[in-house]
Amino acid sequence: MASLSVSRHNQLFWAPVAGRPRARPRASRIRMSLQESGPSIAVVGVTGAVGQEFLSVLADRDFPYRSIKMLASKRSAGRRITFEDREYEVEELTADSFDGVDIGLFSAGGSISKQFGPVAVERGTVVVDNSSAFRMDEKVPLVIPEVNPEAMLNIKAGFGKGALIANPNCSTIICLMAATPLHRRAKVLRMVVSTYQAASGAGAAAMEELQLQTREVLEGKPPTCKIFNRQYAFNLFSHNASILSNGYNEEEMKMVKETRKIWNDKDVKVTATCIRVPVMRAHAESVNLQFERPLDEDTARDILKNAPGIVVIDDRESNHFPTPLEVSNKDDVAVGRIRQDLSQDGNQGLDIFVCGDQIRKGAALNAIQIAEMLL
Amino acid sequence: MASLSVSRHNQLFWAPVAGRPRARPRASRIRMSLQESGPSIAVVGVTGAVGQEFLSVLADRDFPYRSIKMLASKRSAGRRITFEDREYEVEELTADSFDGVDIGLFSAGGSISKQFGPVAVERGTVVVDNSSAFRMDEKVPLVIPEVNPEAMLNIKAGFGKGALIANPNCSTIICLMAATPLHRRAKVLRMVVSTYQAASGAGAAAMEELQLQTREVLEGKPPTCKIFNRQYAFNLFSHNASILSNGYNEEEMKMVKETRKIWNDKDVKVTATCIRVPVMRAHAESVNLQFERPLDEDTARDILKNAPGIVVIDDRESNHFPTPLEVSNKDDVAVGRIRQDLSQDGNQGLDIFVCGDQIRKGAALNAIQIAEMLL
Repeated sequence: MASLSVSRHNQLFWAPVAGRPRARPRASRIRMSLQESGPSIAVVGVTGAVGQEFLSVLADRDFPYRSIKMLASKRSAGRRITFEDREYEVEELTADSFDGVDIGLFSAGGSISKQFGPVAVERGTVVVDNSSAFRMDEKVPLVIPEVNPEAMLNIKAGFGKGALIANPNCSTIICLMAATPLHRRAKVLRMVVSTYQAASGAGAAAMEELQLQTREVLEGKPPTCKIFNRQYAFNLFSHNASILSNGYNEEEMKMVKETRKIWNDKDVKVTATCIRVPVMRAHAESVNLQFERPLDEDTARDILKNAPGIVVIDDRESNHFPTPLEVSNKDDVAVGRIRQDLSQDGNQGLDIFVCGDQIRKGAALNAIQIAEMLL
Repeated sequence: MASLSVSRHNQLFWAPVAGRPRARPRASRIRMSLQESGPSIAVVGVTGAVGQEFLSVLADRDFPYRSIKMLASKRSAGRRITFEDREYEVEELTADSFDGVDIGLFSAGGSISKQFGPVAVERGTVVVDNSSAFRMDEKVPLVIPEVNPEAMLNIKAGFGKGALIANPNCSTIICLMAATPLHRRAKVLRMVVSTYQAASGAGAAAMEELQLQTREVLEGKPPTCKIFNRQYAFNLFSHNASILSNGYNEEEMKMVKETRKIWNDKDVKVTATCIRVPVMRAHAESVNLQFERPLDEDTARDILKNAPGIVVIDDRESNHFPTPLEVSNKDDVAVGRIRQDLSQDGNQGLDIFVCGDQIRKGAALNAIQIAEMLL
């Protein structure tokens, strides 16, 4: 691993511990001046679940901006959005939307990214793309700021020129936030991951369908199945991504391939089973790790306690460990159930359980941390 | 592995494929004569979730009996239960309850089993115990009829004398139903299991609390937390069993230890992470297998298709795999997502996803299959 250029005390990555109210890092009057000189930004897909979270995270972190454009499909154009006490009109996304835009935060699906990402880059915009469109493109850095900030150093140095930066898949981000600090110490050879993924990963409509279905089932009515072709309420199912010829679904293969790229380690072995559970907006993951070198659980716990963006919840006595509900709307990824894996010899294995807000650190927050690194 | 003395075509284990209506294996007029000469049975904990399921399975399988006693705590004594067109009064469980009882089906918790199991054995009853009280006792066979029927041959041969037989933990049963046929072919060296466990494992009151909480949360009210000390609706959490000094919880250690005993293989390596999910009555498990010998996924699928008590649901094209809802109230354990594990070399690894009804095959059905083997 390349050494990190950002420490956990860097304000850029300082996120409050889950449970505490969020601190505002900069006073508003300082912010006014930053705003005047800040970048011009555009939010693409602003009406979606992640788009809305982009705005929430920008406000929470007092992200400096000179101007902000709210972009979406023709269908949503004309809608009004109030953001930081100003009203904006949602504009239709077109090739001309990016004139004069420094940073484009994209979360409108892979096909929109493929169509408009290169257009924006041509006009000088740095696109931070939350879709999977460019993640495995060799020329595009795939970045978790706490994990591999070095991957985007060239783009940071040349800020002002157009470029693409990809935001990893939510499950990958949440897993690697916890696995990377341990990987740096003892080198992960193999990871076996089983996910417990929230409705939010399939968008706001999926979250609404889960609620609607749950009401219906409790009333003894047949559940409405529009987003997913099955009952989701009080049920769970293999992730709805397409199944590839090797039997893995696309979500699982993202975890396999993105881990290799982010860790710059083509030999790391990863398998994943991705399951959708009836939870609203935070993912959980059961992660079994096999290391090259011994790593005892106490050392692992200490490493994680000192890792940026991580909160350790590992109270065996009161049976208190991370839950999706506890990390919902929080920045930090929570880790617990940290224990030596009995099925591996020589202290070379650990089991951990990880929860993270899928919309926040799994998408919007990570993208905005990337944008912050550009400034 | 010792060779199996029961084939899948043995009526004893023949369970209908999930989705099809259950066949009644024996005509009722034949049954009348069996009843006259059948055993005297007692159901201990008859008012609980598993106790009720004992009755349902006995009826579904036309289990022959000469008489049946409905036993429970003093609190439930006097309640009336209608079973197979006859009304019974629930009797208080006492030491004298077992006089003349051939088979005792116990599911009233570990302390009741510890107190009354040996008493029943002394009076000549064969106790099939669903609690964890005697599972790891060397003298007590721990039996999944499709997996290790040979473990109870001595008790079968001496039927009429009192004895204890333990029913394994629900998660162990569901996992080993799928893993054993593959283990017989290629020998499992290591298993990494992550569970998605239903409310039913914590009893009928937990299922009710999940429903109540869900209604409350949908109405914007704070959830009632009596059984679990946290919100369960739209959430998940590490299994509520006590945490041991090695950081595993008791549920996880049951999977580790019971697998070794059932497979009679003290070297098999198992790790498990047990998670409670907001699902009513069927468990799911993501199981990663490492084999001594190569086993390709097509062979594995064929083996599972021919395994007793297993239904393969593995339709990649329509993204149809096992779900807890689909196996609820069903006898068979469903297996899908059968694929070669990319993180292991030489075709020596597989990932599978398993679902089984926790109350049925995970408890009542397995116990009654054991009782059937005695006859």
